[in-house]
Amino acid sequence: MPQSLRVALAGLGTVGTGVHTVLTRNAEIIQQRSGRSVELVGLADLDLQKATALSQGQCPVFSDALVMLRELKPDVVVELIGGYGFAREFVLAAIGQGCSVVTANKALLAVHGRDLFDQAQKAGVTIGFEAAVAGGIPIIKALREGLTANRIEWVAGIINGTTNFILSEMRDKALSFEEALSQAQALGYAEADPTFDIEGVDAAHKITLIASLAFGMPVNFQAAHIEGISKLSSQDIAYAEQLGYRIKLVGLTRRRENGVELRVHPTLVPSRQLLANVEGAMNAVLVKGDAVGQTLYYGKGAGSEPTASAVIADLVDLARLNASSGQTTSVPMLSFQPEHLQDLTVLPIADCETGFYIRLRVLDQPGVLADITRALADGGISIDAFVQRPPQHGVQEAEVVLLTHRCIERNLRLAISRMVQLPSVLNEPITLRVEDLA
Amino acid sequence: MPQSLRVALAGLGTVGTGVHTVLTRNAEIIQQRSGRSVELVGLADLDLQKATALSQGQCPVFSDALVMLRELKPDVVVELIGGYGFAREFVLAAIGQGCSVVTANKALLAVHGRDLFDQAQKAGVTIGFEAAVAGGIPIIKALREGLTANRIEWVAGIINGTTNFILSEMRDKALSFEEALSQAQALGYAEADPTFDIEGVDAAHKITLIASLAFGMPVNFQAAHIEGISKLSSQDIAYAEQLGYRIKLVGLTRRRENGVELRVHPTLVPSRQLLANVEGAMNAVLVKGDAVGQTLYYGKGAGSEPTASAVIADLVDLARLNASSGQTTSVPMLSFQPEHLQDLTVLPIADCETGFYIRLRVLDQPGVLADITRALADGGISIDAFVQRPPQHGVQEAEVVLLTHRCIERNLRLAISRMVQLPSVLNEPITLRVEDLA
Repeated sequence: MPQSLRVALAGLGTVGTGVHTVLTRNAEIIQQRSGRSVELVGLADLDLQKATALSQGQCPVFSDALVMLRELKPDVVVELIGGYGFAREFVLAAIGQGCSVVTANKALLAVHGRDLFDQAQKAGVTIGFEAAVAGGIPIIKALREGLTANRIEWVAGIINGTTNFILSEMRDKALSFEEALSQAQALGYAEADPTFDIEGVDAAHKITLIASLAFGMPVNFQAAHIEGISKLSSQDIAYAEQLGYRIKLVGLTRRRENGVELRVHPTLVPSRQLLANVEGAMNAVLVKGDAVGQTLYYGKGAGSEPTASAVIADLVDLARLNASSGQTTSVPMLSFQPEHLQDLTVLPIADCETGFYIRLRVLDQPGVLADITRALADGGISIDAFVQRPPQHGVQEAEVVLLTHRCIERNLRLAISRMVQLPSVLNEPITLRVEDLA
Repeated sequence: MPQSLRVALAGLGTVGTGVHTVLTRNAEIIQQRSGRSVELVGLADLDLQKATALSQGQCPVFSDALVMLRELKPDVVVELIGGYGFAREFVLAAIGQGCSVVTANKALLAVHGRDLFDQAQKAGVTIGFEAAVAGGIPIIKALREGLTANRIEWVAGIINGTTNFILSEMRDKALSFEEALSQAQALGYAEADPTFDIEGVDAAHKITLIASLAFGMPVNFQAAHIEGISKLSSQDIAYAEQLGYRIKLVGLTRRRENGVELRVHPTLVPSRQLLANVEGAMNAVLVKGDAVGQTLYYGKGAGSEPTASAVIADLVDLARLNASSGQTTSVPMLSFQPEHLQDLTVLPIADCETGFYIRLRVLDQPGVLADITRALADGGISIDAFVQRPPQHGVQEAEVVLLTHRCIERNLRLAISRMVQLPSVLNEPITLRVEDLA
């Protein structure tokens, strides 16, 4: 009987508890797949009572994860502490001790990944992070191993369940953002402080990791363009619907000739596309490769056992390696061999290319539409569709909504600045980006 | 610079040509991911001219793949010959020579896989078959590595593009099966002899392989229940639509207490589900795991470069292994370690459990519906929905369509046999299976 894979688990919140539950429940089947057992040899949490209750005397418990690491010398640590502070110290200590790491901590990897992956590489250990993106969906494995034949052109994902739930509620029940957020909080889909989710930071962490895997670049979260959904109005959701689109918070990264687009923002997606039909707290990632075309990966992006599923998949990868021969993983952490990682330029948002949705209030008088479309045409921007809401009784104003073809954002902003100078244009237009993903 | 992975490619049809094209076009990026180059050292095809034209003098060509194998002693062979005859001989010869195999040949693996996987195991080589199921979608990797934490409960897939295209056409354009098949043939989606596709054999090969990976059982194609779409009428497609369902050719395997269901047949799937919205020649596989819940994998299930993408992914897995240290893959071919494969009973269709769609002609007189529903109720079968088409002018007959809740097929057949004895029932009812997949 080969030795078990000795795993020390730090952080016993929702996901940590899920890892313990699934490892216990499916111990036999996991052993049959791995060729050896995946054994929890220690549990650590600041709340020692919680650790004690979970362990039920099966393994030692610690309030200090660093002590656990030093005392147990595990083969792998699972880091589910969260945040950038102690979690980082713990991961660095594990690497320093020649111990591989499995983590669901996208924030840590997106912000400090450049150093962490580098340190792990030098120490000959690996950092598994399947659980850091899209919960239980094996999208990291797909990008890192399943699609290796391809030049990846772009990846677009609904990778934050909280915001997708809120947007589904806003659309289905015609709620305002604030109402939908309250609902999400009441149902446990949003945290008390929802900033990271609703402002797109969480999605940006994830698309940053995806971009690294897709294009072979060190993580570059600082360069990502991030917009959340907190300023989105239900009016725009309704107009989008009318035009055949749904608004989703999309994380998108695209290889362009002069660099990489890396951005998170509310996005109009054609209603007929599968991505537009991902509802509630579900996640989906759409990948475009030059050989395979489009492939889509869909499932629960969060939650105790779905995320645990991804953590344990990384553990099984390690358990399957032949421990007695000292075999180490052959799969590079960021899909490309470390010496081939390239610091590709992340394009500023002004250089990104998308279609645009523009909503503006205008005076209801002849020639207004001609003036607006001329402002766009002067910037080389052509119009794909438009809707005009007739003025209400007694009001001399109309609301106009335009969709443009793809253009460089800088040009659009210039056209908008010309537009607002028109006497017939009554407000700063609302703009949203459109992705056809075809 | 490490040695390249020396690959000999046998069979230069659509997929073989795709492998050559993609390996050539993306050579650099593949090398950056693999850590060494993936080199085509030989091409074989009965049509030597084709091989010569493709090679362009870059590597030797052979009309006999066995000669290529003996002369070149490659690290891996790619088998894209097809069929069970020479392909089998070639794969066995490769294994005998200590050479790993990558193949897209689902027929060969489904029918002879028990022996082939066993031989490969004993020889210490691997058979990669990502390309054998769902083309470029990395579903084999997801099942074998991505979802290893889970007890897989069931897998349901649209895994034959030809039949899905035909069904989409029948529904969208209200065509008969024959008309839609002709269209599919004209567009190259169906072969001149379409039997394997339209009769469900190809899908059965694939779901057989999926069942092995999901449940850890040797391939058992002989035990699969197979029904195709050639007898499907556009009337049933229309009724299904009316009831909120679409008819798809679904390959399904489900773990039950007393064995495994393994079946391919036309299936009513709720229209709102993503699987029902997979249209045209696209493929999708839905996997239910106890921890992760449902995950879905979607993309092109066939074609030159999509299938090549999967072949090359298997090659990169091999290339990434450290050749100089003699490292071999740590991932068992069927996801479970060979000593843990279990010959699970495949349940006969009579023991399978599904909902049913029943269409029958009846006399239009009082009490008929009561008689029919009694026949079902006596078998413990309850009704979920029904539609009755009013009799046409001057005709004393009506058409009734029923949907039942889930029941064991044996009970349904008994109830039907009682039903046909009713004087008011005018024909042998048409039955189709329903899967809610919720």
